[in-house]
Amino acid sequence: MRNLSISLIIAFTIISCTEKKAVKEVETSTINKQDSTQIKTIFNASLSEGQAYEWLRDLTQNIGGRLSGSPEAQQAVEWGEQLMKDQGFENVRLQAIMVPHWVRGEKENAFYTIGNELSAVPICALGGSIATPNEGITAEVIEVKSLEEAKAKGEQLRGKIVFFNRPFDPTLINTFKAYGGCVDQRYAGAKTCGEFGAVGVIVRSMTLSMDDYPHTGVMSYGDIPSEQYTPTAAISTNAAKKLNEDLKTNPNLKFYFKQSCKTLPDAPSFNVIGEITGSKYPDQYITVGGHLDSWDLGEGAHDDGTGIVQSLEVLRLLKETGIQPQHTIRVVLFMNEENGTRGAKKYAAEAKLKKEVHVAALESDSGGFTPRGFSYDGNEENKELFMSWKPLLSPYGLHDWTVGGSGADVAPLKDGTITLSGYKPNSQRYFDYHHTSTDTFDKVNRRELQLGAAAMTSLVYLMDKYLDVQPIKK
Amino acid sequence: MRNLSISLIIAFTIISCTEKKAVKEVETSTINKQDSTQIKTIFNASLSEGQAYEWLRDLTQNIGGRLSGSPEAQQAVEWGEQLMKDQGFENVRLQAIMVPHWVRGEKENAFYTIGNELSAVPICALGGSIATPNEGITAEVIEVKSLEEAKAKGEQLRGKIVFFNRPFDPTLINTFKAYGGCVDQRYAGAKTCGEFGAVGVIVRSMTLSMDDYPHTGVMSYGDIPSEQYTPTAAISTNAAKKLNEDLKTNPNLKFYFKQSCKTLPDAPSFNVIGEITGSKYPDQYITVGGHLDSWDLGEGAHDDGTGIVQSLEVLRLLKETGIQPQHTIRVVLFMNEENGTRGAKKYAAEAKLKKEVHVAALESDSGGFTPRGFSYDGNEENKELFMSWKPLLSPYGLHDWTVGGSGADVAPLKDGTITLSGYKPNSQRYFDYHHTSTDTFDKVNRRELQLGAAAMTSLVYLMDKYLDVQPIKK
Repeated sequence: MRNLSISLIIAFTIISCTEKKAVKEVETSTINKQDSTQIKTIFNASLSEGQAYEWLRDLTQNIGGRLSGSPEAQQAVEWGEQLMKDQGFENVRLQAIMVPHWVRGEKENAFYTIGNELSAVPICALGGSIATPNEGITAEVIEVKSLEEAKAKGEQLRGKIVFFNRPFDPTLINTFKAYGGCVDQRYAGAKTCGEFGAVGVIVRSMTLSMDDYPHTGVMSYGDIPSEQYTPTAAISTNAAKKLNEDLKTNPNLKFYFKQSCKTLPDAPSFNVIGEITGSKYPDQYITVGGHLDSWDLGEGAHDDGTGIVQSLEVLRLLKETGIQPQHTIRVVLFMNEENGTRGAKKYAAEAKLKKEVHVAALESDSGGFTPRGFSYDGNEENKELFMSWKPLLSPYGLHDWTVGGSGADVAPLKDGTITLSGYKPNSQRYFDYHHTSTDTFDKVNRRELQLGAAAMTSLVYLMDKYLDVQPIKK
Repeated sequence: MRNLSISLIIAFTIISCTEKKAVKEVETSTINKQDSTQIKTIFNASLSEGQAYEWLRDLTQNIGGRLSGSPEAQQAVEWGEQLMKDQGFENVRLQAIMVPHWVRGEKENAFYTIGNELSAVPICALGGSIATPNEGITAEVIEVKSLEEAKAKGEQLRGKIVFFNRPFDPTLINTFKAYGGCVDQRYAGAKTCGEFGAVGVIVRSMTLSMDDYPHTGVMSYGDIPSEQYTPTAAISTNAAKKLNEDLKTNPNLKFYFKQSCKTLPDAPSFNVIGEITGSKYPDQYITVGGHLDSWDLGEGAHDDGTGIVQSLEVLRLLKETGIQPQHTIRVVLFMNEENGTRGAKKYAAEAKLKKEVHVAALESDSGGFTPRGFSYDGNEENKELFMSWKPLLSPYGLHDWTVGGSGADVAPLKDGTITLSGYKPNSQRYFDYHHTSTDTFDKVNRRELQLGAAAMTSLVYLMDKYLDVQPIKK
């Protein structure tokens, strides 16, 4: 048996802890009751009569892939503007920008032969790459697992096609971390190899899925001289696996590939913006958005059609459920996230120029899957407040509230006062479809999309209600 | 400023709370460190070189749907037995049972005409239903939303086809709750209408998805006399929606349907059982399982091929990661969950007969989706212990640990001492595929399946390590 004094201390401690907890619980329950009712109303509306899914069907199936500068991107701009007007959003307008204009050209071709056996290789040019010569490129292949390994090979790369083949780490639970651990090969592979006279670069597709689809994505030659530019393509994971095996027995096999992509002069395009004017602080803004452009291979469904329709749905649901926000809620359909983030830069620059007060910004650009949580990127003062909302959304499966990061389109707004957040759905299937021909409408589940839209609307409701106004000093 | 005494109390409280927390954390961290390392090893193995996905491909694509009593069900039994032997499981054996043997017969047919417009209606007979006469049934339709409403209509049902059309409640976040709120129509619709002379029953498919696939499932005539049996079918949700609309303008439309299903005499079949013998308590058992039978329309992928391969994978992963369990870990591939649970009843009855000591049982029969948590159904003593494992699995996304319920195949083991649990994955997509022709291998995501297998293995590891042995009084 414990001695008395310890028991007393423990007893006192328990009582004090309980009292303290009780006070906290009273506060929490007051917030909870009103807010949990409001949030339930939002979820009910989204799940019963949400519009996001049918909007997505329209955007993805009637317009499809919409790479910056393409006719489809322009159609998407007009689609977004019309939809906002139809929904009665206020101050609907286009924000003009100039965007990079890269075109894929005709379908790429790649193969190699070992003896009589021809292996066709599914490839696609990476965004920003130059074309091969008309007759294509034929060369031996040198396989590496990292930029460092390529650099170390140095002059051995001359005249070769460099094959970057470091796979995603499957043991990382969040697939975005696995992506982050590999994507340098895609982005900087060509830049790294250029100075050593490589004639081509092929990169294992950025996915955990073993399949026959090449996954495109942006690459950059950085600041190397243009005579060092090498044509760069992604190859499917199945083809990467086979090539790796074939190279073991046939290290001198000749690989052929041809692509006819090119970069045209910058083209005019637009962010699309609409609002609900704030009742109390009409000149202070909460932005919610995704990106309207997509890669050209699929329909841009999970990347980022879902973020677009969810962001539009946030404003519709606020109106539908009778919420009159204090701050002006702005939906922004950002253009050119995929290969330039020109829309994001323009939006942030104009906000700064106009000395707009931005209270918060939320981005959805991680797919339209079942919600898991939100990230927080803001100051210390608001962090605790933000995290205190977790119990309000955990009944809807949002348990993963993390610190750090938001999204490429809202990040440029960061200024030390704004609260930034990224919508975080289940990441398991995202890279199966990311930047490929399979990123199509049928891969999106209606309820998963609706749950995400409701979760985002709930967060915007809470941010509008509770976030302190911290004006930027003018 | 607060007064000093309050400050002191608060300060003391904080210190005491902190100390108490520290003690708790030391205890927790001791458990955590060893266990979290072990669990990480399990997840790594499953995600890097898991076998569940390829096993599922084999079961679903080379055998396919495997309704109790069918040749495919027998093939699945042999498949499971062989796989267990190949994996080196011990005491691999078949447990003989007799199962209901219902066959669908030729493809069903249904339509109605309004003026010159013929509407074909996708239907499928419900499991256990009788056939229509050879020439089919043609009758007017009476729509109801519940068993109660049907009962209240009474004699108005005579000569009519009763159309049960209460949809899932889309506002319920867990779709199993929505299913639970509707499935009485499918199970007991015919039983309810029989005494009033209805000539047929058609039931809206049990899904939130609006599509053209009828979803089958078990129904029962209960104890009504066989002359009151009515042929019963499911119709697709899109067809249910259209029929509902057409009935408003054409309440006397004539609906035709034909089906040729029948119930044959009970057939011999088997549960398939394998083990890893416990090092310390070889005569005490922890069971993990799913059901080997499925409906005939699809490939039985999510229901319950995934549960089968995950359960097999639990034993493989325990061996693979070098875990030597204290108790005997038994995998059971239960036969006949869908239309009789004869396998489950036999397994529990034999356990009781042999006076086996069953420590715990875990079932996976909610689809192969991303893990969200586990349910607990056991005594109060072990509940807290079970719930204390949550922090070990929350890094893998398992936040929803609920009390109550396990699964139809392990529930008969309940005896007041055993710890029962059900594996709970994300429920959003489950009823899109449930009991339809679309429940096929391609609907299962490899990583989601692997994460589930790892979560289940982790729970079995923890149950084996920590659950108190509470022998049944013999």
